[in-house]
Amino acid sequence: MELIFLGTGAGVPAKERNVSATALKWTERKGRTWLFDCGEATQHQILHSPVKLGKVDHIWITHLHGDHLFGLPGVLGSRSFQEANTPLILFGPEGLRRFVDTVLTVSQTHLRYEWEVREVTPGVVYEDDDVRVICAELDHGIPCFGYRIEEKDRPGSLRTDLLKALGVPPGPLYRRLKAGQDVQLPDGRMIRAREVLGPPKRGRVVTILGDTRPTEAAVRLASQADVLVHEATYRTQEAALAVTHGHATTVDAARTAVRAGVRTLILNHISPRYGVEDEPALLAEARAIFPETYVARDGWCFPVISRD
Amino acid sequence: MELIFLGTGAGVPAKERNVSATALKWTERKGRTWLFDCGEATQHQILHSPVKLGKVDHIWITHLHGDHLFGLPGVLGSRSFQEANTPLILFGPEGLRRFVDTVLTVSQTHLRYEWEVREVTPGVVYEDDDVRVICAELDHGIPCFGYRIEEKDRPGSLRTDLLKALGVPPGPLYRRLKAGQDVQLPDGRMIRAREVLGPPKRGRVVTILGDTRPTEAAVRLASQADVLVHEATYRTQEAALAVTHGHATTVDAARTAVRAGVRTLILNHISPRYGVEDEPALLAEARAIFPETYVARDGWCFPVISRD
Repeated sequence: MELIFLGTGAGVPAKERNVSATALKWTERKGRTWLFDCGEATQHQILHSPVKLGKVDHIWITHLHGDHLFGLPGVLGSRSFQEANTPLILFGPEGLRRFVDTVLTVSQTHLRYEWEVREVTPGVVYEDDDVRVICAELDHGIPCFGYRIEEKDRPGSLRTDLLKALGVPPGPLYRRLKAGQDVQLPDGRMIRAREVLGPPKRGRVVTILGDTRPTEAAVRLASQADVLVHEATYRTQEAALAVTHGHATTVDAARTAVRAGVRTLILNHISPRYGVEDEPALLAEARAIFPETYVARDGWCFPVISRD
Repeated sequence: MELIFLGTGAGVPAKERNVSATALKWTERKGRTWLFDCGEATQHQILHSPVKLGKVDHIWITHLHGDHLFGLPGVLGSRSFQEANTPLILFGPEGLRRFVDTVLTVSQTHLRYEWEVREVTPGVVYEDDDVRVICAELDHGIPCFGYRIEEKDRPGSLRTDLLKALGVPPGPLYRRLKAGQDVQLPDGRMIRAREVLGPPKRGRVVTILGDTRPTEAAVRLASQADVLVHEATYRTQEAALAVTHGHATTVDAARTAVRAGVRTLILNHISPRYGVEDEPALLAEARAIFPETYVARDGWCFPVISRD
């Protein structure tokens, strides 16, 4: 999987950073893509990115502030205009359905694909064979969520050297063993799956937070994550502003990363008061506390590699 | 006054043309600016243009399709974020108020300036000392308006050579004569304003249309205009598509320009199927009928010069 940062700024668009949107592209799952937040001009950013609008099948909104939401109508409409016909599910706080319904009705936008809105509450909000998504409420003044995307553990590799030595012929038996089933050979011997499989492959965990002051909920949601995408609207010298406006500083984000025991921290949602020239200072503040920190930029792609 | 084309494409944003927005900057009136339509990312286009968001005090929406509307929430919010405190009036079809109210409420966007929505019906929709705006309904399948902006005629220049010869001293009397008032000199002589003023300066007329099939309403609204901004979504070979989708071709626009007797025609709202390389062909089709035709491009500024 790959994180593609489409908008890494806060509040209002600036020349260097657009408002919030982050894509998670499941390279292993035919390029299907999940979008986290959808600030204005997200579809414009997509035009210049490896994301295909027609492949976006889940959109997760952290909260309903305009810089995370106002690009959604355009994404919905253009996805239809491009004749995507796969279903789309929208997740987000209460109010999202009213927003989408009103905007589509007033503008007479008729989507050609199936879609639904699921207004979320904390807990497991999505699960399929491969992935589970858990959400928790953060501390931003209005209802605001973070999402923890947990890839499920996959069976280990089949130890074909061992199977050959045991005289098990390649074919359907291999597939059953690979799926974790014990099998009986024609000669009556039982082969236990756990004895011929390597250790399970740990699923990756990516935690993407909405805007937030430091909060225990963020630490729990990011526990042992491979990647934590955390807002860092302000430098630490603006900590008072961060508290007032319900945001985090570079240092807040780094402390959450340490406490959660994550592998990598990516700072996002940077105030337009900071230009590219301020990035080294932002990074230095966070790296003093959590060395494996990066600052996201619009257009940046970050591959999420398994620990195995 | 100056027209600044912020978005000249149709339907969906493309790399070369954004969706609809046109600014009319009143250079004579302290740079105050009117915005006609507000497709997604209009505020982004403004960032790269001579338009100041804080100077935008009237926004005119032709119709509620997304490519003319979805940038409005961001413009409203960012105008507030930039601490503009002058009032803003929004004009547009019925439904505009519901859209704005819902979007601002759901996103908890609190505007720091006064604002109001005026849902328009055909006729005179605005008038002040200098300008009158008339709107008419076009033919687009949903309620869709065109706006005719009529600058009022201004008094002619004061013929100071004549006043000097008559022995009228410069000062307050000049101002009254300039304003069209007759004045009596201390020696009892009456000076008639009309005798010492040059011919009145004809106000300029700019007609900006929403999306439309050819219609008599457009011809009337553009009558004798200095500039007609007319959609030309399609080339003439796609005339059947234009009819189906409620749009005009290059040739439709040119014929309206001829019938209305305008000075200049600007083609706008170009389908993303046409690239910059197709512009000569679009122009040629229109110019064969109406020579004084241009094709708008994003970022293009067109000064509207008086005939005098």
